[in-house]
Amino acid sequence: MNGLSALWSIFGPVLALLARIMMAFSFAFLVPLAWGWALDLDYLRAIWGVAFGLTFGSGLLLLWLTRNQYRELLPRDGFLLVVLVWLVLTAYAAFPLYWLVPDISWSHAYFEAMSALTATGATALSGLGDLPVSVNVWRAFLQYIGGLGIMLLVVAVLPLLGLGGMQLYKAETPGPMKDTKFTPRIAETARGLWLIYFGFSLACLLAYRWAGMSWADAFIHMCSTMSLGGFSSQDASIGYWDSAAVELVAIVFMALAGISFLRYFLVLRTLTLGPIANDREIRSYFVVLFGSVALVTALLTAQQVETDFWTALRSSAFHVLSLATTTGYSATDYAQWPVFIGVYLLFLGCFVSCAGSTGGGIKMVRMVLLVKQARRELVRIVHPRVVNPVTLGGQRVAAATLTTVLGFMLIYGAATLGLTFMLLLTGLDIVTAFSAVVATLNNIGPGLGQVGPAHNFGWLSSFQLWLLSFAMLLGRLELLTVLVLFTRHYWRR
Amino acid sequence: MNGLSALWSIFGPVLALLARIMMAFSFAFLVPLAWGWALDLDYLRAIWGVAFGLTFGSGLLLLWLTRNQYRELLPRDGFLLVVLVWLVLTAYAAFPLYWLVPDISWSHAYFEAMSALTATGATALSGLGDLPVSVNVWRAFLQYIGGLGIMLLVVAVLPLLGLGGMQLYKAETPGPMKDTKFTPRIAETARGLWLIYFGFSLACLLAYRWAGMSWADAFIHMCSTMSLGGFSSQDASIGYWDSAAVELVAIVFMALAGISFLRYFLVLRTLTLGPIANDREIRSYFVVLFGSVALVTALLTAQQVETDFWTALRSSAFHVLSLATTTGYSATDYAQWPVFIGVYLLFLGCFVSCAGSTGGGIKMVRMVLLVKQARRELVRIVHPRVVNPVTLGGQRVAAATLTTVLGFMLIYGAATLGLTFMLLLTGLDIVTAFSAVVATLNNIGPGLGQVGPAHNFGWLSSFQLWLLSFAMLLGRLELLTVLVLFTRHYWRR
Ligand SMILES: [K+]
Ligand SMILES: [K+]
Repeated sequence: MNGLSALWSIFGPVLALLARIMMAFSFAFLVPLAWGWALDLDYLRAIWGVAFGLTFGSGLLLLWLTRNQYRELLPRDGFLLVVLVWLVLTAYAAFPLYWLVPDISWSHAYFEAMSALTATGATALSGLGDLPVSVNVWRAFLQYIGGLGIMLLVVAVLPLLGLGGMQLYKAETPGPMKDTKFTPRIAETARGLWLIYFGFSLACLLAYRWAGMSWADAFIHMCSTMSLGGFSSQDASIGYWDSAAVELVAIVFMALAGISFLRYFLVLRTLTLGPIANDREIRSYFVVLFGSVALVTALLTAQQVETDFWTALRSSAFHVLSLATTTGYSATDYAQWPVFIGVYLLFLGCFVSCAGSTGGGIKMVRMVLLVKQARRELVRIVHPRVVNPVTLGGQRVAAATLTTVLGFMLIYGAATLGLTFMLLLTGLDIVTAFSAVVATLNNIGPGLGQVGPAHNFGWLSSFQLWLLSFAMLLGRLELLTVLVLFTRHYWRR
Repeated sequence: MNGLSALWSIFGPVLALLARIMMAFSFAFLVPLAWGWALDLDYLRAIWGVAFGLTFGSGLLLLWLTRNQYRELLPRDGFLLVVLVWLVLTAYAAFPLYWLVPDISWSHAYFEAMSALTATGATALSGLGDLPVSVNVWRAFLQYIGGLGIMLLVVAVLPLLGLGGMQLYKAETPGPMKDTKFTPRIAETARGLWLIYFGFSLACLLAYRWAGMSWADAFIHMCSTMSLGGFSSQDASIGYWDSAAVELVAIVFMALAGISFLRYFLVLRTLTLGPIANDREIRSYFVVLFGSVALVTALLTAQQVETDFWTALRSSAFHVLSLATTTGYSATDYAQWPVFIGVYLLFLGCFVSCAGSTGGGIKMVRMVLLVKQARRELVRIVHPRVVNPVTLGGQRVAAATLTTVLGFMLIYGAATLGLTFMLLLTGLDIVTAFSAVVATLNNIGPGLGQVGPAHNFGWLSSFQLWLLSFAMLLGRLELLTVLVLFTRHYWRR
């Protein structure tokens, strides 16, 4: 078997599955088509129709090309599949943006679509309010699909690959967790999770409408809230509405969406609140959120940024929730606040979301383990001979799991540094380069400096946009899924 | 036994040893006294004499106060002793600076003394060239003493405490290393190391004199080169001489001092070059140094910062060596170069120095292990069942050692973040705050932004200076030595 046919034997069956996913994905274009039919000019319908046809047709063609490639997929094929799915769907999703948004390059369109499908929410566009409704619907709906995909990925696919934060919940010894283990089959679990997701979504949609948004805006923001994506139909983001009600709806649903949907699933199945109330990760999640809201409120009040306590509290709660859950909405240019706050909000985005939510970053469960491990190291110095295992929810965490988490952090740190250095080489200033990497690698959205909440990513060069598109993909797929494809070992079978 | 007497039973014997160290340290004041006698005005002699008397007298008084506190010191007493030694000697070292430097606050004097004794080289003073010679001699000689202390600490004390990069060299299985193990007794090892250090120092002194410096400047820069401290007698640092010969001497001796002095000791004992030529850490050290000089030279040439290739090479070699070894000399305001270079140089300072040298940062041996561990994690994903141990110099690294290194990195990252956030709260800008922490925690010296090579730390507030003094101590004592004192466990016996 020569090199090319060996490669084809790896790619063929993966592409056959990709073809089916493309065909399923093509139906997503019917959503902006429907909104465009109702609210936009005639020629737009044609574009959405063409995009649908192109994607479905491409999938069909690929299916025909790979018709002889039947083979049981191995777990390791999953890496290639997941990366290809995100890369290819992003390209098809970018086509209508490229056609419909004036003066946009292919780099911009691809960046925007990647930002959507990874639920990052960094935008390369401006003048959002002047775009056709269907374009904004498409951007937001892509985030919604991305959110569904991420949930499927984290709950069902990554554990098969031995990756992802959810892994950490695997108890080392049999215990009470065993009984409450979620339905093991992917399809059933996914169906249950998605039903909950749709239930929350409906409530969120109605709440935004109640708070005074138009149906279109309510739909758009429901999509980008539930997916923690953060795209808005206005350059000023949620600030455009300047409404306490809208902000309250966002706060509530961002907080809910930042928790693993598996927990809600378990609550429904066991009909007790235990799975949420007793969960170490969720407890830390709320402790950090409340603590941060208090801290930021105190700073805003003390430094007299806001006129009174209640305005400070509202502003603080909204932005802490938005950034910590990696949604990335803004209601004001918080980069103008005391510099500590902007950096702190970005820092929260790096770890606060729970594993199994649609949020980005390293996830709270890893952070809990890291803090416990650091504390353990200090104790070990004083008592070198004391066995002092790290526990999570009363269960001992296996040493191998800890090493994996620490290894993940290493690669996460190296990726942050490496990408920042590459951006610095292109001449960006330090704050912009570093914050752009943090904001995309953690799928947060807005950064600081020239990519802060009052700016967008549209002024960046093509190279910079491609680099950050890669960062979004890397972060969303929890780094290792992507990086493993760059090792010799993956391709030698 | 009540709380206070329990505390006294911990402190008493430690203070008794501290008293002896203070008395020994007091003789260091005779060095600036001698230089001042020769070169400065009369009244200065009195000050150095008083400082000597004060320190010796304080030591004597403390010795008398603790005369009944005899007890065998436990390894854990070492943490307290080491921290107290650095804190207390810094205070006594700061007195003459406070008296002799015009318009200086106690915070400035303490910061400067801490920067000296930790061989950091961040200065809070300006107008260095106008200071009495004996003051500049004192600043540099403190770095020299600091360097000797650090070597003793890293080679002899920290391993007793189960800490420090040298630990990593402990082979898990008996092997060829065993034969070449250095003399185990602290005193003998220290004597051997210091003899080598003095030998290099003499060569360095004569080389600087040959390159055209005055005897005083040659002595000052010998002190701050050999200790990788980086203090200069001029605000413009080595740039003041604008001499290729001076820079060459600095390059050679910084490169030599960045290697573990234990290696030279082994070379002398075995009379072969093996201990240096076969050492994984030293190989990585030179690979990174040469690669970085090439990279920076290429950038300086490509972006036409320097007029020709040879000027670029000279500038690149000097600054890469200076920052990577954490010396921190500058020959020009490299912060004005393309922004990538400044950040990259600071990054090099975080890890390039070898364990057992007088350099700061996490040390190259840890970096080698981190890179190997990250690579191993990626391989493990593809081949979950393959046992793939991390090795160092052909020896398998124990899992516990790896966990310790990863734990160290966690605490190092947390310290960097925590200190940066505290500086941001005081209102510093992001680049200044972050780079000030990196420059002090890694004992490098100059940062970027408002604490860059063309600036100094003198404009900072007292609080900021104290915080950064703490960062220097933390970094120099490899974090854990200090942080362990903040745990409950340490004080419960
Ligand atoms: K987001
Ligand atoms: K230094």
